[in-house]
Amino acid sequence: MSLFDPLFGSDRVAAELSDEAWVRTLIEVEVALARAAAGCGLVSAGAAAQVTGVAAELVVDVEALGVAAVEGGNPVIPLVRLLRAAAGDAGPAVHVGATSQDVLDTALVLLVRRAAAVLREDLAGAADAAALHARVHRDTPMAARTLGQQALPTTFGLVAAGWCAGLDHARAALSVVVDGLPVQLGGAAGTLAALYPHGLDVGRVLAAELGLPWAPPWHTERTRVGALAGALGVAAGACAKPATDIVLLAGTELGEVSEAVPGDSSSMPHKHNPIAAVTARAAARRAPGLVATLLASMEHEHQRAVGAWHAEWPTVTELLRVTGGAASRLRTSLEGLQVHPGSMATHVPAGELVHHAGELVDHVLDTRQETA
Amino acid sequence: MSLFDPLFGSDRVAAELSDEAWVRTLIEVEVALARAAAGCGLVSAGAAAQVTGVAAELVVDVEALGVAAVEGGNPVIPLVRLLRAAAGDAGPAVHVGATSQDVLDTALVLLVRRAAAVLREDLAGAADAAALHARVHRDTPMAARTLGQQALPTTFGLVAAGWCAGLDHARAALSVVVDGLPVQLGGAAGTLAALYPHGLDVGRVLAAELGLPWAPPWHTERTRVGALAGALGVAAGACAKPATDIVLLAGTELGEVSEAVPGDSSSMPHKHNPIAAVTARAAARRAPGLVATLLASMEHEHQRAVGAWHAEWPTVTELLRVTGGAASRLRTSLEGLQVHPGSMATHVPAGELVHHAGELVDHVLDTRQETA
Amino acid sequence: MSLFDPLFGSDRVAAELSDEAWVRTLIEVEVALARAAAGCGLVSAGAAAQVTGVAAELVVDVEALGVAAVEGGNPVIPLVRLLRAAAGDAGPAVHVGATSQDVLDTALVLLVRRAAAVLREDLAGAADAAALHARVHRDTPMAARTLGQQALPTTFGLVAAGWCAGLDHARAALSVVVDGLPVQLGGAAGTLAALYPHGLDVGRVLAAELGLPWAPPWHTERTRVGALAGALGVAAGACAKPATDIVLLAGTELGEVSEAVPGDSSSMPHKHNPIAAVTARAAARRAPGLVATLLASMEHEHQRAVGAWHAEWPTVTELLRVTGGAASRLRTSLEGLQVHPGSMATHVPAGELVHHAGELVDHVLDTRQETA
Amino acid sequence: MSLFDPLFGSDRVAAELSDEAWVRTLIEVEVALARAAAGCGLVSAGAAAQVTGVAAELVVDVEALGVAAVEGGNPVIPLVRLLRAAAGDAGPAVHVGATSQDVLDTALVLLVRRAAAVLREDLAGAADAAALHARVHRDTPMAARTLGQQALPTTFGLVAAGWCAGLDHARAALSVVVDGLPVQLGGAAGTLAALYPHGLDVGRVLAAELGLPWAPPWHTERTRVGALAGALGVAAGACAKPATDIVLLAGTELGEVSEAVPGDSSSMPHKHNPIAAVTARAAARRAPGLVATLLASMEHEHQRAVGAWHAEWPTVTELLRVTGGAASRLRTSLEGLQVHPGSMATHVPAGELVHHAGELVDHVLDTRQETA
Repeated sequence: MSLFDPLFGSDRVAAELSDEAWVRTLIEVEVALARAAAGCGLVSAGAAAQVTGVAAELVVDVEALGVAAVEGGNPVIPLVRLLRAAAGDAGPAVHVGATSQDVLDTALVLLVRRAAAVLREDLAGAADAAALHARVHRDTPMAARTLGQQALPTTFGLVAAGWCAGLDHARAALSVVVDGLPVQLGGAAGTLAALYPHGLDVGRVLAAELGLPWAPPWHTERTRVGALAGALGVAAGACAKPATDIVLLAGTELGEVSEAVPGDSSSMPHKHNPIAAVTARAAARRAPGLVATLLASMEHEHQRAVGAWHAEWPTVTELLRVTGGAASRLRTSLEGLQVHPGSMATHVPAGELVHHAGELVDHVLDTRQETA
Repeated sequence: MSLFDPLFGSDRVAAELSDEAWVRTLIEVEVALARAAAGCGLVSAGAAAQVTGVAAELVVDVEALGVAAVEGGNPVIPLVRLLRAAAGDAGPAVHVGATSQDVLDTALVLLVRRAAAVLREDLAGAADAAALHARVHRDTPMAARTLGQQALPTTFGLVAAGWCAGLDHARAALSVVVDGLPVQLGGAAGTLAALYPHGLDVGRVLAAELGLPWAPPWHTERTRVGALAGALGVAAGACAKPATDIVLLAGTELGEVSEAVPGDSSSMPHKHNPIAAVTARAAARRAPGLVATLLASMEHEHQRAVGAWHAEWPTVTELLRVTGGAASRLRTSLEGLQVHPGSMATHVPAGELVHHAGELVDHVLDTRQETA
Repeated sequence: MSLFDPLFGSDRVAAELSDEAWVRTLIEVEVALARAAAGCGLVSAGAAAQVTGVAAELVVDVEALGVAAVEGGNPVIPLVRLLRAAAGDAGPAVHVGATSQDVLDTALVLLVRRAAAVLREDLAGAADAAALHARVHRDTPMAARTLGQQALPTTFGLVAAGWCAGLDHARAALSVVVDGLPVQLGGAAGTLAALYPHGLDVGRVLAAELGLPWAPPWHTERTRVGALAGALGVAAGACAKPATDIVLLAGTELGEVSEAVPGDSSSMPHKHNPIAAVTARAAARRAPGLVATLLASMEHEHQRAVGAWHAEWPTVTELLRVTGGAASRLRTSLEGLQVHPGSMATHVPAGELVHHAGELVDHVLDTRQETA
Repeated sequence: MSLFDPLFGSDRVAAELSDEAWVRTLIEVEVALARAAAGCGLVSAGAAAQVTGVAAELVVDVEALGVAAVEGGNPVIPLVRLLRAAAGDAGPAVHVGATSQDVLDTALVLLVRRAAAVLREDLAGAADAAALHARVHRDTPMAARTLGQQALPTTFGLVAAGWCAGLDHARAALSVVVDGLPVQLGGAAGTLAALYPHGLDVGRVLAAELGLPWAPPWHTERTRVGALAGALGVAAGACAKPATDIVLLAGTELGEVSEAVPGDSSSMPHKHNPIAAVTARAAARRAPGLVATLLASMEHEHQRAVGAWHAEWPTVTELLRVTGGAASRLRTSLEGLQVHPGSMATHVPAGELVHHAGELVDHVLDTRQETA
């Protein structure tokens, strides 16, 4: 956990993406591959069991592995050396027919799924909190503001329902992408040559071992990584919208909401800063640039990209951290949000309020219920 | 059509996004709204018919409209004035209960659908061309290249099948997003107040008039715009990959493919530049930054954003142009691509080639068939 | 001028970047090159004069030129054909020793300088307007707001001085970059071979003809384009800051400033929208993604890039348009800005105000004076 | 040092940007501020000395500080509490008249200068290596390649001179920006109120203590951060160009250069991957998106931004890491680069080579000499 992680809400998601998690997951894939190879009769069950056993005991010096990764350009190469050495005569059962990218891509998929589980939980928690505000304040009048100016009345319930809908849409779309991320197994050239004629079988068994879908090798067909980037960017944006509204509504002159535990100030202890929303916004702001990096990196050359592939690892990781952070901080903000109907009332023009706001709130909440 | 449109392949998609198309589509939405209002009994059928009639005849000076749009910050305001003036006593049947954003967002959805139809056609055409190469060259051996170095053999069929798969994935994902884009109708504050108690009905009839899905107002809930951006970015990336490969494979020293109508040079007429692939790449490169702009613009303030909404119009338009251009130029490149098995053979290590390439090609082509 | 140009403030800068301006400037470079070749004795003065003459009369069908540009991937190739045909027996004096990129890059530099002149004027105008507010309101108290909360008092003069300083910094940095953009002349391979042994002389004379600095060929050394992108991005950001403040200060509940000609609304005519600042913000938001595109396109392959070069043309153009638009709209906003000291006073805590705000305003204004 | 740092060349620059470096530097600023306050007579020399002493001994639990930073939204608030507690009766001499942003911004400036020193060294080292190649291979013929096709001949010296020029330009521009980054001291509202009437003096003395220029408070005037982002983006691009060329020239079919210590492969030990250039490219690819984030974050609201400021910390840090990594890996690649004139010769058309390449190399090297 780094200095700024808690502040940006990234601590929980970052734990799933630590260096240790990377190493552990790379090993997990190698073990599953040994078992898949055994399952297809390419190595003995005993050898696979031996690999499984030594892998469970393997102590890896992460810093040393990072240094050893320099020569070949990825950490799988030295890790395979470590594993083979540890496995003794079962060494040949390690990394059977695979190339580094198989192991790295599959590990990345596993890491994404685990980090995304945290993110999805926080998106759901934030949406639930917004839904509760929508229900409670279904008919609480407030001023709609367009281009910063007070316009006709709306209700806080409708505002919160909009937040909820955005968070739900983003989460649903993200889930489709994440759940579809498949195992990677193609071997050195993406032809599964070293596993011939068992290549496709090994791939399918490996997928089953890891609980992932199977797909033909996608070494340099990166639409999935691009789609993941897009879905994470949308999720960050879906968090930025309510965070921005909260910051504005919590402004001194509006005073229509406030955070449960407003932040203090080093120079002005009387202030009530909506710090959770502010830092949710800060985290979300970092997503679009990272999405652009990943989309620009879809042009993988030939059968292994000269840099675009490598750029994915830290960028996907960082994008998960900032999106996870935005969702976490927004959830904190929303779960503790104090709503001030009295202040809202002072900004609403007098007179009869007739509109469809309540109906629209019901529609959002009902639709949500059906699909939950 | 601007000077650089044909070169970047954007001419056909640009025609759907011209200033004239914008104005025509804004009017189309206003007309549909008048008819929907009539359908719900808010205005007379005669008035709606009159609006429909004058709209069909309305001659709009686009430059003047652009200048008139400055004051209120969007072209709908002066366009409504024009339409009302033209409609005479049916004037009140124009823009019933709507706000500018309703008309602009709905028009944008229509423009996106029409431009995306062109784009989808070119993505499909490019994928079909790649599929044909995959079928024809299912067993044509070539050197796989990883990190720029010759590795084990693969087949050109497998390479082309990977291009096809990426293009198909991108097109399928884009279709889901585009087909789901709904009508926008919320009125001034997003509460449909001015249409009460018929607001939801008018929205649904308007949607039906225009052949769009209905959804609650999404004035400032922009996950759909973000998802569109992401899907277009992925489509551009899916074009960049084969374009990059073609450029590399067409290099003098590799000489494994060439374009049908290679470009000439102002100073070296002997050269055979793979211009279609080069300009496909150029167009695709422009997408990721535009996606980032749209994702960063998801934080719409309150009930109408102070700039983030306005930034969407030219950015969505431009993103469609560059993605459409990339797909069009890639299609040209692929449809005319000359494959040189002889050159490929000179780069493949001798010896028996045993691998799963053919099977993987079949898998891609069969899966494609099933879902077509 | 396109539909949205006036609204986003881009009309004046766009006029310098139109298709017609592109064609005219490409011709201008070819003419200067013919004269430079004559100056160095490579062609006759008569031939150069003939080229100059026919170029002045040449009527180019821009659409047709755009279509003809497809084959070779740039418009210079067909334009040279047109010019040579028009020049008759002076045809060989056209495009002497040059390659398309020489002409295109040099033309782009000229276009940038002309568009940047408009932009610099608007940045200066906006800064002057901010400086005037700073001087007039040097001691006008208002609430400082940190994280959206009222904090200690400041003065509107200090706020406006900050706007002024940012605009001045951005303009100064932009000027350094723009004024340093040199002529491009390298020939087909960047070695000036076709002009040997007069290549460097021709380059220097060409530079002098066009009023540009000379530099060795920079065909694929694109730090200048990257620096231009960065400087334009900073200028857009320097506009976004005051535009954002104005939008916030003009909000109904703050009401501390308003625009001279506030925008109207299609549904709520009573509203006073700060449309100039809103659209300045909208234009500025589009810059960062375009900057990223240009920076990502610095990796020009070998001696002519396979797409990254082509991507520069529309992206530099667009970046100038949005930055120019942001500056223009901000200038309008600032020049007409109504400041409401009475409203400001209601948000300032009572009590003696002792601070350095006035001194800091003086420092900014004095420094500005010295360097003007 | 994290797992991927060495691979992406970021280990040396990352050491200047670690959590520990952040904490140490925040303390350094607080100490300098106490001394500056003493220098201006606001606190006693004894109290400042006491603060200096306890600060030197202070042991900070970085994780706990990170957690404590959540409430107020930045780590300075809890750090000031720690320092004041440790300082005992000299506690009031800590953080005199300052706000968190003063300390954070100033610390960021110091961190940037230190990390940039590493980066500048590697940019210089890479440029020197390129210059040496340019000198040695001033007249080594090779094929120029445009759009991937062999064109006329050039020399490897001219190619390397272009790399050198780009790296030198980027470094020079970066130095101007970094050396100009000033101290930040404005107090809670940017008016130096709490230091009145000594505010400007304290700022100037603080600047002198830290060896930084002074400037009026720039809390929300972020052109300097934007300019830094742009300069780092250009530096990354200047590294990407030679890295891309090296990757291409090292391709099997060209074989014109190779790296000294080519990377191995987990599946194909015979391969000679130009890993340093590949990972330089990978690092450089991550810069443009980060630049876009920083430029988009220039719109700081009022007197302290609601998220845009916070987003700067990790983004500036990351941008320094990737740019530093790109420079470091490129330097490694260039310093060990093996050039193969024999291979180059096989791709050059026969015949006399007359061109200005050598002269242009001399020009680049001579200009460099003059300005070194």
